[in-house]
Amino acid sequence: MTTTSSTTSFAASVLDPIRAIVGERGIITDPGTMQPFMESWRDGWVGRSPAVVLPDSAQALAAVVRICAETRTPIVPQGGNTGLTGASQPHADGSEIVLSTNRLNRIREIDLDNDTMTVEAGCILANIQNAARDVGRLFPMSLAAEGSCQIGGNIATNAGGVQVVRYGNMRNLVAGLEVVLPDGRIWDGLRGLRKDNAGYDMKQIFIGSEGTLGIVTAAVLKLSPLPRATATALVAVSSPSDAVDLLTRAKGKVGDRIITFELIQRFCIDIARRHVPDVPDPLNDVYPWYVLVELADQDSGERLAGMLEGILEAAMEAGEVLDGVVAASKAQADSLWRIREGIPEGQKREGVSYKHDVSVPISKVALFLDRANAALEREFPGIRPFSFGHLGDGNIHYNPIQGEDGDPAEWKARLGAVNAIVHDIVVDLGGSISAEHGIGRLRIDELPRYKSPVELDMMVALKMAFDPHNIMNPGKILRLNGNAR
Amino acid sequence: MTTTSSTTSFAASVLDPIRAIVGERGIITDPGTMQPFMESWRDGWVGRSPAVVLPDSAQALAAVVRICAETRTPIVPQGGNTGLTGASQPHADGSEIVLSTNRLNRIREIDLDNDTMTVEAGCILANIQNAARDVGRLFPMSLAAEGSCQIGGNIATNAGGVQVVRYGNMRNLVAGLEVVLPDGRIWDGLRGLRKDNAGYDMKQIFIGSEGTLGIVTAAVLKLSPLPRATATALVAVSSPSDAVDLLTRAKGKVGDRIITFELIQRFCIDIARRHVPDVPDPLNDVYPWYVLVELADQDSGERLAGMLEGILEAAMEAGEVLDGVVAASKAQADSLWRIREGIPEGQKREGVSYKHDVSVPISKVALFLDRANAALEREFPGIRPFSFGHLGDGNIHYNPIQGEDGDPAEWKARLGAVNAIVHDIVVDLGGSISAEHGIGRLRIDELPRYKSPVELDMMVALKMAFDPHNIMNPGKILRLNGNAR
Repeated sequence: MTTTSSTTSFAASVLDPIRAIVGERGIITDPGTMQPFMESWRDGWVGRSPAVVLPDSAQALAAVVRICAETRTPIVPQGGNTGLTGASQPHADGSEIVLSTNRLNRIREIDLDNDTMTVEAGCILANIQNAARDVGRLFPMSLAAEGSCQIGGNIATNAGGVQVVRYGNMRNLVAGLEVVLPDGRIWDGLRGLRKDNAGYDMKQIFIGSEGTLGIVTAAVLKLSPLPRATATALVAVSSPSDAVDLLTRAKGKVGDRIITFELIQRFCIDIARRHVPDVPDPLNDVYPWYVLVELADQDSGERLAGMLEGILEAAMEAGEVLDGVVAASKAQADSLWRIREGIPEGQKREGVSYKHDVSVPISKVALFLDRANAALEREFPGIRPFSFGHLGDGNIHYNPIQGEDGDPAEWKARLGAVNAIVHDIVVDLGGSISAEHGIGRLRIDELPRYKSPVELDMMVALKMAFDPHNIMNPGKILRLNGNAR
Repeated sequence: MTTTSSTTSFAASVLDPIRAIVGERGIITDPGTMQPFMESWRDGWVGRSPAVVLPDSAQALAAVVRICAETRTPIVPQGGNTGLTGASQPHADGSEIVLSTNRLNRIREIDLDNDTMTVEAGCILANIQNAARDVGRLFPMSLAAEGSCQIGGNIATNAGGVQVVRYGNMRNLVAGLEVVLPDGRIWDGLRGLRKDNAGYDMKQIFIGSEGTLGIVTAAVLKLSPLPRATATALVAVSSPSDAVDLLTRAKGKVGDRIITFELIQRFCIDIARRHVPDVPDPLNDVYPWYVLVELADQDSGERLAGMLEGILEAAMEAGEVLDGVVAASKAQADSLWRIREGIPEGQKREGVSYKHDVSVPISKVALFLDRANAALEREFPGIRPFSFGHLGDGNIHYNPIQGEDGDPAEWKARLGAVNAIVHDIVVDLGGSISAEHGIGRLRIDELPRYKSPVELDMMVALKMAFDPHNIMNPGKILRLNGNAR
């Protein structure tokens, strides 16, 4: 790609055959038009590419991959391009084509008695949620990017979100897959089954593999009954440890009616209120920690609210809960959610922050916060702890913010050191350095520090077995053979 | 193993080093004492082996595997030996050692706030259920062999059972694994996390791999809240199609409170009553089909029974349900379960039967039964349809019984032909030829007929990546390179 002749040869051997398959509508080579596909919406990943290819069928996509396989042209699969780890943008050297699923956007089938929906990879998550709701079902995957992320990317990253405590990760919501393999063959695994032990469950390897083993082109999704009612509360607690006790209490009383259980540090609310309009201060007094809890059920809203109130009253008597409010209306519930949703936006405007998407066993969350806060405050005086997230599944967005004083550039330079301190503690407590966002390029150099040689070897063995020429999203998750990718 | 000198050399190079690791208590070579490890409790699988090895730790088990890897000695991993597909017994040529997890039977840890339990592979399923119940939790895996099957085998076969409609398969209940790989290294993946996207989720490949990729030595299991109440009913319906309508109705009304939804053909009840004591005829009249439905919840038993009655009344008004009984006591519920549980035993005594463990999309169950029954009756007049199973997850035990007349030996010889007719229809409807039992040896020669070349290639690639010398449970699930194993 560095000389005119190699560019010509690349065009003749790769781009022209691809153009013959996808047509002029299916390929973009104009730099300006390509730009949105080259960069991430956050975190500054920017790359270059000779072409963005947008096939309109799995067959066309497979034919494109075959050309890439024959010519050893590396591919970056891309869905809604909303990821947070640099996995869906090309590298800066411009050697990779971007293969977009934007035009694979049909809902192929809804099977009501089977509670499944067959969708193509480019369907927007929110459209899938709405299509399910239109037929009286729930597709429970829900996350901030749902208006633009695509289901193929949700599957490739095993997306999480705010309802994992009840419905599990994306892995749990997939019954079947259609995948284009790195050699360009199509695997039709679009089975809508709850039980299938006929050989290895091959779909599992593609879920969460960040496009490094193949490209998901369609999926059979599992639908759930649509809850008839929800009940929402925001309560104050004096510590994360009390929040865990409240969670354990609530699970015992209402089990899987808990669809959301979010822990929020007071400082997060302050920051959201400082920078984002209409974020309320929910209670009359100020408390150190809060929990946003939501229940959902087929039973009546009154019954559900009564159960929630019962739990909170008992928790207040036991001293776990200091104060709280149960939403009396949809508007009031939305207002409580506004607090939670305002946090990431507020944080962005407050200065340098150190983002971590970590999980530990729920029983270790309080200990993790204590240890990480103490270690960082010791090392970087003035750093401000900032923690919120999905306590119900042990996933904390632990995002401390720079001190009020000091040079932002200096604070920025500390990112790697902060990550190392936090991640060392996480792994020491049996946790994960990436709970839901994946590894991509963001954590690729940290992974070898936190995975055993045995586990890394297994990951490499899997990659080599399915993509021996390393053309599928190279340099994401793993570097092979000590190479840059 | 065929000459004295090779036997001597095998003893010196393999058995003596193994004995040095596990001690005399950890190795059995006496044929009589080995016999229970050589044969299946049902279906007649019998093999031979030079030794049964019973390590008492993952470390010792790994050391044994290292010796086998170095000497290319094939291994049959064995748990409770309750499988139904010949996966856990050695082949007849006596070349494989049996590696038993019987002595890996400790519960290592229970983490109440994290709702997890860390167990060794040899723990009996019922002991795990009881240990969970003792601390106020539910471990929801439940199946007929629970009194003797081991959790390692449940994981290796991705066990199903009667509560999958609510809690999922074994895969859904595993948070982390410890596995000894075919080269004898130990992978410590014992993480108790609900969210972990730090690289490929390697535990997924071992779950359901029937011991062909490695040996599970321990697992972190997910626990659930213990339901406070259950409600059980047996209802009569005129067709499987009406049973599906009832299921859809019930899911809409009570969602995941449904823990069991079993379809039962009338003839199954007749056969159970003919051969098994104390199986009641549940209703005053005789109906063609029945459904055993059970709900469980944290709410009160009265509330739950009221919900169940409400569903059944509405279903009767809609004509989906013809008659039914809601159990008024634990004893009455047990008596209804006695019907379901008496079926396999009754069937065994009625003559030759053709067992199938198939699944189709729930929406296709009625069509499957119609087509399969018609095809078999056309081909084998007099054959008696006999169907029951887990309608809630599309898994039907479709086990037609020989005609009342004819030579049993002739009926027996038709097994392959019956399997082919049934499985062709299953796969044509998007189903699986093994819903929960696995492939083992029973279905190994059928798998290539029903899996695409692409899928078979992927399975072989995975096997070769992890067990290139094919020492781990060879000749189960797959034959490699056209070899017998």
